[in-house]
Amino acid sequence: MRAARFHAKEDVRIEEVEEPSPGPGQVKLRNAFAGICGSDLHVYYAPEASGLDLTKPHPVTGAMPPQILGHEFSGTVVEVGEGVDRVAVGDDVAVWPVYGCGTCAACRRGMFNACRTIAFHGLNAHGGGMAEYTTVDAAKLHKLPEGVDLRLGALVEPMSVAWHAVAHANVQAGGSALVAGAGPIGIGVWFALRAQGVERVLVSEPSADRRAIIEALGATTVDPVNDDLASAVADLTDGDGVDAAFDAAGVGPSITSGLANLTPGGRLVVVALHERTMDFLPTQLVMSETEIVGVLGYTQDDFDAVIQAMSEGRYDTTGWVQEVDLDDVVDAIRSLRGGNGAKVLVRSGAAA
Amino acid sequence: MRAARFHAKEDVRIEEVEEPSPGPGQVKLRNAFAGICGSDLHVYYAPEASGLDLTKPHPVTGAMPPQILGHEFSGTVVEVGEGVDRVAVGDDVAVWPVYGCGTCAACRRGMFNACRTIAFHGLNAHGGGMAEYTTVDAAKLHKLPEGVDLRLGALVEPMSVAWHAVAHANVQAGGSALVAGAGPIGIGVWFALRAQGVERVLVSEPSADRRAIIEALGATTVDPVNDDLASAVADLTDGDGVDAAFDAAGVGPSITSGLANLTPGGRLVVVALHERTMDFLPTQLVMSETEIVGVLGYTQDDFDAVIQAMSEGRYDTTGWVQEVDLDDVVDAIRSLRGGNGAKVLVRSGAAA
Ligand SMILES: [Zn+2]
Ligand SMILES: [Zn+2]
Ligand SMILES: [Zn+2]
Ligand SMILES: [Zn+2]
Repeated sequence: MRAARFHAKEDVRIEEVEEPSPGPGQVKLRNAFAGICGSDLHVYYAPEASGLDLTKPHPVTGAMPPQILGHEFSGTVVEVGEGVDRVAVGDDVAVWPVYGCGTCAACRRGMFNACRTIAFHGLNAHGGGMAEYTTVDAAKLHKLPEGVDLRLGALVEPMSVAWHAVAHANVQAGGSALVAGAGPIGIGVWFALRAQGVERVLVSEPSADRRAIIEALGATTVDPVNDDLASAVADLTDGDGVDAAFDAAGVGPSITSGLANLTPGGRLVVVALHERTMDFLPTQLVMSETEIVGVLGYTQDDFDAVIQAMSEGRYDTTGWVQEVDLDDVVDAIRSLRGGNGAKVLVRSGAAA
Repeated sequence: MRAARFHAKEDVRIEEVEEPSPGPGQVKLRNAFAGICGSDLHVYYAPEASGLDLTKPHPVTGAMPPQILGHEFSGTVVEVGEGVDRVAVGDDVAVWPVYGCGTCAACRRGMFNACRTIAFHGLNAHGGGMAEYTTVDAAKLHKLPEGVDLRLGALVEPMSVAWHAVAHANVQAGGSALVAGAGPIGIGVWFALRAQGVERVLVSEPSADRRAIIEALGATTVDPVNDDLASAVADLTDGDGVDAAFDAAGVGPSITSGLANLTPGGRLVVVALHERTMDFLPTQLVMSETEIVGVLGYTQDDFDAVIQAMSEGRYDTTGWVQEVDLDDVVDAIRSLRGGNGAKVLVRSGAAA
């Protein structure tokens, strides 16, 4: 079968590999769509700084490069291994791609997303979504119901990152929020907030192109560089500040201005990786008893919640989701690095 | 009556002032002990940077200097105004010294401690604890039960700051904690943790004198400069990291090392003011989904909880509480600035 495999830094090849066969408890999927995300770019351009040690077999999965990419993906069950009864041939599914060690402090708390030796199907496990087929444990599958197609199915993973962030914000229906950054995660936070009943949302984004995309979805935006963010928040909240702020941009000013615009007791959720340290005054948290929390990945409950919200029509892919063929993965990675704010889905198997 | 009054920067005078008389709903107290705290030092040395605008009448209380000091104090009811039935002449009390505006975003959430125009009895209201008598609203009084003397009563306020911090840490009985800083607030955090069933506590403090004081109370300590803090935490927690960390030191390294030694999902509570910004990498919160929360002051519930714990014998003033006469307030402020880590109580009225 055809697959996109990472061999080494800036070396991803589209090549012929052996078709996998499901073991006991596993299923074989004909992959449909697989998203390209920031982690893929990290692995491609700076594998040594990606947080993944790709130089030796992964301690949980035993995998090492060449590695099939694609950890945000959907597919259709084409074969089930011994003992599998959760799904049947013909089911469309999204894949929760996480492998936790099961024994570290995080895993023992059920926080597999923060496992100290976490692995992902499509990053450091025995297969991935950017291939015609893959095999995975049936326990990792989330069935796509009526109304959630395979294209939406490939978005369940990144939308779960955003849903998880909102779930950690302690914001109630009827509350208010500020979202910094209108890339795919910021867009996902905006959808998740509205699906959870938070209608008063302001999106802060310096790029006019990205503002236009999220405005077309219905969002209210502000340019934090040339407009007055504080007065936009004051207008939205009668001067009280927002209940929750989200840093989906990964830059210091998102944190500083997010905190400055929180209501007393409010919470800032960091759902982006920062490449640089920032100048931070902890006293900024003290005066209004505000909080900062970091979030990472998602749980299987987040997958279920996103799929449910998708089935209720809460997500719209207009304007921010593009498709490319498997052969064009490398070109797509390069164009994403240039700052293209879209989510790119690779048509991998069934969809190709 | 005699009172210690702040007139201007580095100008506190012990002088004769008029004895107050209780209005309706108020009581008159013969003050007993009043603690000197960091806020008093700020007001004395740098009133313009204290966060209190002492140049015009306070918007809530109407007070301005000359101001009687003493916001951490205890006393005995000597006269009750019209309509007061919560307390009676002869009752020993601690005073919750907070005045909130009642209308700001914080007050409307019941967070009077974070009121945007907060005032304190003894800092910017019509009286204070460093005088022979004062009058306060009866609603601000917390009766001291059997076993909680007036000396402990004056410690209810600072111990409530620490109790409030622990209440915001989400640490469960049986959990573990790291406390950075063994001044009066760090000591209070240590007492509050133990009173709440958290026995595995490590106190990090670079000063040998302060370590000796808290060790004498029963604490386990580590010198974060010359010892290996990370391995001490690992020993305490079987390598998992602590459930909660406290920054009661107000320096960047307390935050950085506190976060580094948290278990996944753990919480760092900032209960100190920082004078300087720090270099901070928000990604440090993301990898283990940890949190930072700032806390400020206390609620009346914290006062009740501390008084209850005091009545159960949970607090010990050995080695860290000193007393001075009202006439020696200025000398005491100067000695505290020199880094004396003790809590100094002023014998103001009944105790003088
Ligand atoms: Zn991803
Ligand atoms: Zn693990
Ligand atoms: Zn104080
Ligand atoms: Zn207020």
